[in-house]
Amino acid sequence: MSRQELVELVRSQLQALLQQKNFQGAKALLVPVQPADIAQAIEGLPKAMQAIAFRLLSKQEAIEVYEYLDSSIQQSLIAELRQQEVLEIVDKMSPDDRARLFDELPAIVVQQLLQQLSPAQREATALILGYKEGTAGRIMTTEYLSVKEDLTVSQAIERVRVLASATEIIYYLYVTDRERRLTGTLSFRDLVIAQPEQRLGEIMTRDVIFVHTDTDQEEVAQIIQRYDLVAVPVVDTEQRLVGIVTVDDVLDVLEQETTEDIYTLGGVEAGGDNYFQANVLTAARKRVVWLFVLLIANTGTTAVISAQENVLEQVVALAAFIPLLIDTGGNVGAQSSTVVIRGLNLREVGIKKALQVVTRETITGALLGVMLGIAVIFWAYLLEGSLPIAMTVGTSLLTITILAAVSGSGLPFLFGAIGLDPALMSAPFITSIVDVLGVFIYLMLARAILQL
Amino acid sequence: MSRQELVELVRSQLQALLQQKNFQGAKALLVPVQPADIAQAIEGLPKAMQAIAFRLLSKQEAIEVYEYLDSSIQQSLIAELRQQEVLEIVDKMSPDDRARLFDELPAIVVQQLLQQLSPAQREATALILGYKEGTAGRIMTTEYLSVKEDLTVSQAIERVRVLASATEIIYYLYVTDRERRLTGTLSFRDLVIAQPEQRLGEIMTRDVIFVHTDTDQEEVAQIIQRYDLVAVPVVDTEQRLVGIVTVDDVLDVLEQETTEDIYTLGGVEAGGDNYFQANVLTAARKRVVWLFVLLIANTGTTAVISAQENVLEQVVALAAFIPLLIDTGGNVGAQSSTVVIRGLNLREVGIKKALQVVTRETITGALLGVMLGIAVIFWAYLLEGSLPIAMTVGTSLLTITILAAVSGSGLPFLFGAIGLDPALMSAPFITSIVDVLGVFIYLMLARAILQL
Repeated sequence: MSRQELVELVRSQLQALLQQKNFQGAKALLVPVQPADIAQAIEGLPKAMQAIAFRLLSKQEAIEVYEYLDSSIQQSLIAELRQQEVLEIVDKMSPDDRARLFDELPAIVVQQLLQQLSPAQREATALILGYKEGTAGRIMTTEYLSVKEDLTVSQAIERVRVLASATEIIYYLYVTDRERRLTGTLSFRDLVIAQPEQRLGEIMTRDVIFVHTDTDQEEVAQIIQRYDLVAVPVVDTEQRLVGIVTVDDVLDVLEQETTEDIYTLGGVEAGGDNYFQANVLTAARKRVVWLFVLLIANTGTTAVISAQENVLEQVVALAAFIPLLIDTGGNVGAQSSTVVIRGLNLREVGIKKALQVVTRETITGALLGVMLGIAVIFWAYLLEGSLPIAMTVGTSLLTITILAAVSGSGLPFLFGAIGLDPALMSAPFITSIVDVLGVFIYLMLARAILQL
Repeated sequence: MSRQELVELVRSQLQALLQQKNFQGAKALLVPVQPADIAQAIEGLPKAMQAIAFRLLSKQEAIEVYEYLDSSIQQSLIAELRQQEVLEIVDKMSPDDRARLFDELPAIVVQQLLQQLSPAQREATALILGYKEGTAGRIMTTEYLSVKEDLTVSQAIERVRVLASATEIIYYLYVTDRERRLTGTLSFRDLVIAQPEQRLGEIMTRDVIFVHTDTDQEEVAQIIQRYDLVAVPVVDTEQRLVGIVTVDDVLDVLEQETTEDIYTLGGVEAGGDNYFQANVLTAARKRVVWLFVLLIANTGTTAVISAQENVLEQVVALAAFIPLLIDTGGNVGAQSSTVVIRGLNLREVGIKKALQVVTRETITGALLGVMLGIAVIFWAYLLEGSLPIAMTVGTSLLTITILAAVSGSGLPFLFGAIGLDPALMSAPFITSIVDVLGVFIYLMLARAILQL
């Protein structure tokens, strides 16, 4: 049984038990289930049942499940639960997850909650909320184990025994000097292997990879990925350790960045809330600007055809092939821009290789154009019975394909070089650009070949 | 200085030193640099210098750097280095990285290398190579720490001291029974916190999340992401522990899957080698099939216009608006399909919500259509000076926009429901489908409004 099926089974049984008001049964059902799966099952329940199901959980489990819930459900639960229940959960959340929740809540609720947190938790949250969105400071947690470098191994183990149960992440110990400046790291394995009387300063790794509080979250993700880390320490401008970013937060960042990349490729404005939780007006707003930009580009195509109307007046059959030509141009351009933009995002290709890549794409485009062109000549001859028309369509297709490959591969590089996001030159934009030129070429070739 | 700038600096200095044959200087330059950065610097060197630079590294460092190199460079180095050097590196690589390298090498080279590996390493690699590509078995490593459940904590610590230096990953201990069946896990923290005389069976976590050797790698990635794990154990059909998959390998899997998703969205066949390392023929092959499929769809549009040619003969001005109408339809469809496909991939929406999402997208599409339609009526009137033509274009645009939103959001769900990849219904395909219908609607509306 897949996890998905398991969650669905739990959800349907839970819903049935709650409808029968069999709360003992529902409680027993959830005991062996993982918090992440309980959270997903609760998300699938009708709104009115969510708070009831959530109340069945033990206090410790409630906190864990809460952190896995989608932020819209976290918010609605806050409204449903009694103030005391809310406080207990929010106080025990890890500071980075809490900061993320506070980002979504109305300011007045945040104020109320902040005031009632325990002083240590209030301080930790306020610290994180003080950093700019999208930086390491904002996604870090302040729950890590740090020890001073002049401790012995056995003193450090003693300290870990005392502190360990309170911290979220447990893979590294961070070693600091008297001024709380980060000087090294230790894994638990190092601690287990070392002799009890050794000083931490002797056995720690001094060559630490770290980030600053204002490092961009995407860069943090790349560093963790590149150096195969489980967590990376975060320091302030004076090199003092203030938090760590863990790999599970980075997985979320990567997912979010990928969604933004894909949205940009599809011509949807990226950023902000979950698209499916936004209302229709927000959804429309995220799309209308780019549609208008594209529309203006498309009026160029209309103007070109309008200006050459006398060609179409003489051979109206030519009009039938316009969609085929511009769609194929768009498709070839989309393919080229897709691979180039992805390559640039992953740093598989750099600006320096632009000429090489564009040349390669042009040759590929020409190859594809020849194959598609020959197919289209047959089709056009079959449909219209005129060889000159068929030849016009075929040669136009070849020219448009090459043009599309050049723009699709070249424009993302150009945008990257002048400091814009290469993904802005994605399929819809390449299509619009190729269309204007493509239609012009088609009508010019028609004029020449058909001697109009 | 960003990591990227650091690497570039190292690369340029390294190249200069190697050109001056100052090998001591080059060696000194690389000492403080991280293996991942050295690997990237070497990748940027001219081909002839790569093996020379690589030989400057100490044996231990060479192994680490080698694992970070791109597979094409790993292969060319194998050809350049002496047999003995190659063996030393390959023998010390972790089994999963070695299996990945062997996937890329010619079979004859793999045979030679396998024969000369140490027996333990040969066995580990052969084990991994025995599983199907894309499964947990193929990306797992056999280097993990496992202990029997009847050991005491102090016996376990002793065992860890002996074994720890040989293993890649060090975050969990896996506990098995006498038959090597996985029964629990322990973190190093658990070990440090526990009393020395306790049995592992008493303190271990029994509720272990694991995967099977044939679990799909994408599912493994989702499980690690979902449960915030650092590594997940892999068991065979008899529940015996055979390996672990670590989060750093999963980051690579996620990146690869994202590239495949994005390629599919852009109409490029996914899978196989790095696109930029493939030759022009391979690149063309990856693209030609879908282009022909799309071309066939586009001939539908041509056929529709051809059949309605008498409409265009009477009012040739109508032809000028065809590209604008179908491009806008394509853009709106691309937006809808992009958000729905991404939502389905991330499981933010399920098949059950199809009706709700399609309704929402339809309303959004109608809103956008009204705004764009009004703009286009003005533009068409300006260009052609005919209100009936302007009204035809405007109402067609509204209809096409709604149609595009319905198909763009509905078809990915339909494909998902019948077990196909929803991403196949991406922008290029939606565009082609909307075009055929869109042009038909346009010419029909023209017939009605202009009374042709």
